[in-house]
Amino acid sequence: MSDEAALIATLNAHLWRNAFNVWLGLELVAAGEAGVEIRLPWRAEFMSNPDRGGAHGGILAALIDTAADFAIAARLGRPLPTIDLRVDYHRPAAAGPMLVRGTVIRLGRQIATAEASVFDSEDRLLASGRGAYFAASAS
Amino acid sequence: MSDEAALIATLNAHLWRNAFNVWLGLELVAAGEAGVEIRLPWRAEFMSNPDRGGAHGGILAALIDTAADFAIAARLGRPLPTIDLRVDYHRPAAAGPMLVRGTVIRLGRQIATAEASVFDSEDRLLASGRGAYFAASAS
Amino acid sequence: MSDEAALIATLNAHLWRNAFNVWLGLELVAAGEAGVEIRLPWRAEFMSNPDRGGAHGGILAALIDTAADFAIAARLGRPLPTIDLRVDYHRPAAAGPMLVRGTVIRLGRQIATAEASVFDSEDRLLASGRGAYFAASAS
Amino acid sequence: MSDEAALIATLNAHLWRNAFNVWLGLELVAAGEAGVEIRLPWRAEFMSNPDRGGAHGGILAALIDTAADFAIAARLGRPLPTIDLRVDYHRPAAAGPMLVRGTVIRLGRQIATAEASVFDSEDRLLASGRGAYFAASAS
Repeated sequence: MSDEAALIATLNAHLWRNAFNVWLGLELVAAGEAGVEIRLPWRAEFMSNPDRGGAHGGILAALIDTAADFAIAARLGRPLPTIDLRVDYHRPAAAGPMLVRGTVIRLGRQIATAEASVFDSEDRLLASGRGAYFAASAS
Repeated sequence: MSDEAALIATLNAHLWRNAFNVWLGLELVAAGEAGVEIRLPWRAEFMSNPDRGGAHGGILAALIDTAADFAIAARLGRPLPTIDLRVDYHRPAAAGPMLVRGTVIRLGRQIATAEASVFDSEDRLLASGRGAYFAASAS
Repeated sequence: MSDEAALIATLNAHLWRNAFNVWLGLELVAAGEAGVEIRLPWRAEFMSNPDRGGAHGGILAALIDTAADFAIAARLGRPLPTIDLRVDYHRPAAAGPMLVRGTVIRLGRQIATAEASVFDSEDRLLASGRGAYFAASAS
Repeated sequence: MSDEAALIATLNAHLWRNAFNVWLGLELVAAGEAGVEIRLPWRAEFMSNPDRGGAHGGILAALIDTAADFAIAARLGRPLPTIDLRVDYHRPAAAGPMLVRGTVIRLGRQIATAEASVFDSEDRLLASGRGAYFAASAS
């Protein structure tokens, strides 16, 4: 198993301890110094407004928080508690699988900052955002 | 039916057109100029880290976005598209029912800003935040 | 000297150690458990777009960061380092004196969250926002 | 004069209509599809806490708002009104000249989102953040 494959296995083990991540259907498929990629299939329960279509803002927020935190986890070996999260909604998402890319902005000893972007199956940017994470925590 | 009861019925009809809100189990129980209150029971799928306990950050983000937007809807008769959302996580949430209170900060002709706070069954503040909403939209 | 007058004197001493606060002309005029009020006169250098009028967004951001942090300082005796700041711009500010009110949202052992609102001389809300502050810092 | 030199001249003309930008000493030195770069010298009035050193958070917020907005202006020919701004503070800034890079995240017809990062003279990241801007405005 390559280093990346071992890292992906470790990170998915962390990811799947979280019941909501399992419900979302998240799978981390790439990980390294440059960040992580997480994929998920569509679920009918994601649907927000049936007129405008697309995933509920809370689903997209969950994806951004998770991918940003796991970009940190790809460096530190574990995700960190979220201090705060900020999400920009760029386009309504049509029903379909999504891909989230997370990258670290700054890994400080006390605070870590990371960002993530959600794309649809045609690689259009649906939402993006940032989180601040508590790096000084004991566990 | 009182004015507030009629408003609650209208807003719950909007709320329940959204599949994710139904999955979350949201019910709007109070509405007026001062804002809205939305309740929800616990679901096992909300669980984040089983060691630290508590609801996934994405669940709390969904609650804040929804309650802030429905505080606007209590004034305008309909929720608005979210431009961006910002969430502060204050305490890990133990498993249990939650209450979200949403209030309008500023209702402009083009942009509306609203905030919401999530409480556990002992009225402790779990998370709070704000959203910017697009008021100039046609529908 | 009353307790509040003594607290105001202590907080203004902190405020005025900061050269940019002095340049802004900030004066803390009320302080207590409920939060703080800071006043400032207009300076010609605050002006943003001369067509739309009003203070530069960075001036309003500085006011919100400072008032939120000093609401914390009114409890702890000192301001804390800012982790991140979020500002909503509600109305263009006409030239004139401003008042900023800051209040604490949650004072945790590791992270503190506070908010502030900027008003013009006719008590109209110009901008509001929140900051996360690092409470676990040594100094 | 090259296309970029003409664009830089146009954008600096916009930048310098703003009294606070002039006071800050901002000069836009690069502009294109990829974004903008703005430089500024240090001023003694920028100083925040003289113990920890570094620029006031409001100064850094002003730089991020301006560079993000002018990354949009490099595409549209004019800056847009700021809806909201979010700033992450990564390191205390020592006294010295700073460079801010702004880039567009998404240019929608109604809402534009852009980000910016502030660096010190040794190219260390001091602060970064994002703004949402109102693209549907008439002027």
